[in-house]
Amino acid sequence: MSVLNDPFIDRLERARSGAKRLATATTASKDAALEAIAVGIEQAIPGIVAANAEDLRRGRENGLDAGLLDRLLLDETRLRGLAAAVREVIALPDPVGQVVRGSTLANGIRISQVRVPFGVIGAIYEARPNVTVDIAALSLKSGNGVVLRGGSAAESSNAVLVDVIQRAVTSVGLDGDAVQTIDEFGREGASRLMRARGYVDVLIPRGSAGLISTVVQESTVPVIETGAGIVHVFVDASADEEMAAAIVRNAKTHRPSVCNAAETLLVHRDAAERLLPRLAADLIAAGVTLNGDEAARGFSEEILPAGEAEWSTEHLALVMGVRVVDSLDEALAHIERYSTRHTESIVTQDYANAERFLAEVDSAAVMVNASTRFTDGGEFGFGAEVGISTQKLHARGPMGLPELTSTKWLVRGSGQIR
Amino acid sequence: MSVLNDPFIDRLERARSGAKRLATATTASKDAALEAIAVGIEQAIPGIVAANAEDLRRGRENGLDAGLLDRLLLDETRLRGLAAAVREVIALPDPVGQVVRGSTLANGIRISQVRVPFGVIGAIYEARPNVTVDIAALSLKSGNGVVLRGGSAAESSNAVLVDVIQRAVTSVGLDGDAVQTIDEFGREGASRLMRARGYVDVLIPRGSAGLISTVVQESTVPVIETGAGIVHVFVDASADEEMAAAIVRNAKTHRPSVCNAAETLLVHRDAAERLLPRLAADLIAAGVTLNGDEAARGFSEEILPAGEAEWSTEHLALVMGVRVVDSLDEALAHIERYSTRHTESIVTQDYANAERFLAEVDSAAVMVNASTRFTDGGEFGFGAEVGISTQKLHARGPMGLPELTSTKWLVRGSGQIR
Repeated sequence: MSVLNDPFIDRLERARSGAKRLATATTASKDAALEAIAVGIEQAIPGIVAANAEDLRRGRENGLDAGLLDRLLLDETRLRGLAAAVREVIALPDPVGQVVRGSTLANGIRISQVRVPFGVIGAIYEARPNVTVDIAALSLKSGNGVVLRGGSAAESSNAVLVDVIQRAVTSVGLDGDAVQTIDEFGREGASRLMRARGYVDVLIPRGSAGLISTVVQESTVPVIETGAGIVHVFVDASADEEMAAAIVRNAKTHRPSVCNAAETLLVHRDAAERLLPRLAADLIAAGVTLNGDEAARGFSEEILPAGEAEWSTEHLALVMGVRVVDSLDEALAHIERYSTRHTESIVTQDYANAERFLAEVDSAAVMVNASTRFTDGGEFGFGAEVGISTQKLHARGPMGLPELTSTKWLVRGSGQIR
Repeated sequence: MSVLNDPFIDRLERARSGAKRLATATTASKDAALEAIAVGIEQAIPGIVAANAEDLRRGRENGLDAGLLDRLLLDETRLRGLAAAVREVIALPDPVGQVVRGSTLANGIRISQVRVPFGVIGAIYEARPNVTVDIAALSLKSGNGVVLRGGSAAESSNAVLVDVIQRAVTSVGLDGDAVQTIDEFGREGASRLMRARGYVDVLIPRGSAGLISTVVQESTVPVIETGAGIVHVFVDASADEEMAAAIVRNAKTHRPSVCNAAETLLVHRDAAERLLPRLAADLIAAGVTLNGDEAARGFSEEILPAGEAEWSTEHLALVMGVRVVDSLDEALAHIERYSTRHTESIVTQDYANAERFLAEVDSAAVMVNASTRFTDGGEFGFGAEVGISTQKLHARGPMGLPELTSTKWLVRGSGQIR
């Protein structure tokens, strides 16, 4: 099939052309589009729920487990929540046009670096139709078109949602084509999206470590990794007992299924006798299964033996590894070896150790005396949850709307030459 | 061969371990290393010239053309220039540790985003031993280790230069292993470097469009593209004659071999009769071969016919395409289609057209009434020439030392939990 008649390429070209109009749209018109999307979702609840029922039925037939079916489910409450989330994006500042820096050169040329949209964002995620709306809203506000690949499990829900979004965007005089879904092109569509240089400016995978790894390996389009979190809490020799207990419990149990939840507890040998029995008892009382090394198990009979795989496992559940280390150096070496560079926290009263930990741990967020759960765009005051980048290029840590933009240099002269 | 005995992996691990020490080194010690490198190069001139002679002899045997042999050549003058360039890097501000932003959250947690080195930079370039020194100096100053793949044509020169650099870094108490060459691993080494996730944090290719395209296609390590420039100058209907003549001539002829030199001249139909004969005559007098569309050729008999390939060719030589367009819209459409998104400039007296051009052209640098030659780190006041990024992720346009860093969030609490 020639490129001219290729329906997949046609989809990408529509996104590109819709994005071009969006790139120079005013904040007021983009906000109007978002409000129209929120209203559109509320008005289309019966239709969306019906389409979602098809996905759920197919999911049950295909033997999806209860957790996946729950992630797939859209009911009236969740849809009203989604509409509310879209309205929250309206309240965020528009990053487009922000001047990052600028100066006047000696020859009188004025240069300024301003934020501009990427162009078209590709989003690859799995069976979460709410992400369709989230990513579309964040892309629109930042002036970007978006090509959505939400996976076949949510295909019917995504189709209706994208239709609602396209109509809403068009209704305010912008180009609804800026938002596209490629679910019906299946796995081949996902593969082609990863190689769609020239059509898509950046790919953002959201989902399992396996999905993200596939995208990173296969993609020729630049990728922003929003990665897995093997997150460590290190309880230093001088740690305060109550503070350590509160931080460890919160980091592990507050919301165990998310990437900033702690997976491994490291305890300094000099604090183990004083603190480990209490920390272990608290965690176990909160329903956590502990897998520990031999030294840790010496302080609590309820800690199960840990295999080597424990230290590189992201449980995302009420399971935690526990290890006793001889020193700050040993803790740093363990983190260096096993961390996914998301978030690590030290609990300590020792100033020098706190500063060494902050300086030497190479993670997106490095904390002293705080729960790892604070690595979050909302907590950091960014107001939107684009994801948490675990890569070092472009964005690292919680991403706000500015991280969905690039910049360009505007150069205003009066005839200067070199 | 097992990973443990793999000399290639050993090289990467040395770079990584050397980089770790460098990441927390003081500016003073990094500057001392740079001064030691400059002195080391000056003292090793006879040895470097001898090694370079081997490369030149092999190059001649392999039939390298005069241009490539000239790029390969290192003589005493060039080596003293290289040492001086290293000393210029000493004068640049150290980006590591700079606080990008920070705040105190409502709960009392203090967050700050600080610049940190990437870790290890991979550099892939072709037959230019001076790049070995440039990239090593910039990497060291920004706290990064670096793995250099400079190509087999410059293998002997690069080996001596890297030895000089390693000794110099070690002599001031840092770890010389932070700088590594993998030239002797040949093409397979380059391929492995592109897939060395976990060892290398970012790859920067410098060289031909073909080299950059290969790296982008094959690499699983994030890449910063420093790309080709199909750069346009658009002479609008209202352009001032002298200004247009000066800018067009400067953009094309000041240094035709570099990426910010103009390749295509677009002239508004309403200005063509007034300006094109003069512009064409000036360019031809300066030795430029002009290839034009039919309309352009109607204004000057000396313009040769242009094929369709003209508009997508980066000549990097005294050759230029000329096209007459009916409107600003047609100019924007031509640029949208053929530009490599490096730099474009409009020459105009019309305020609205200037602002539309600035807003709608999607390039790293967009100019009004200035020569495209100003897209340059030195001209922008960055002081160092890391390259000019033509991608939208992480860095766009001229890159300074800060673009060789990532950031991390430091989070200082006093026991906060969610």
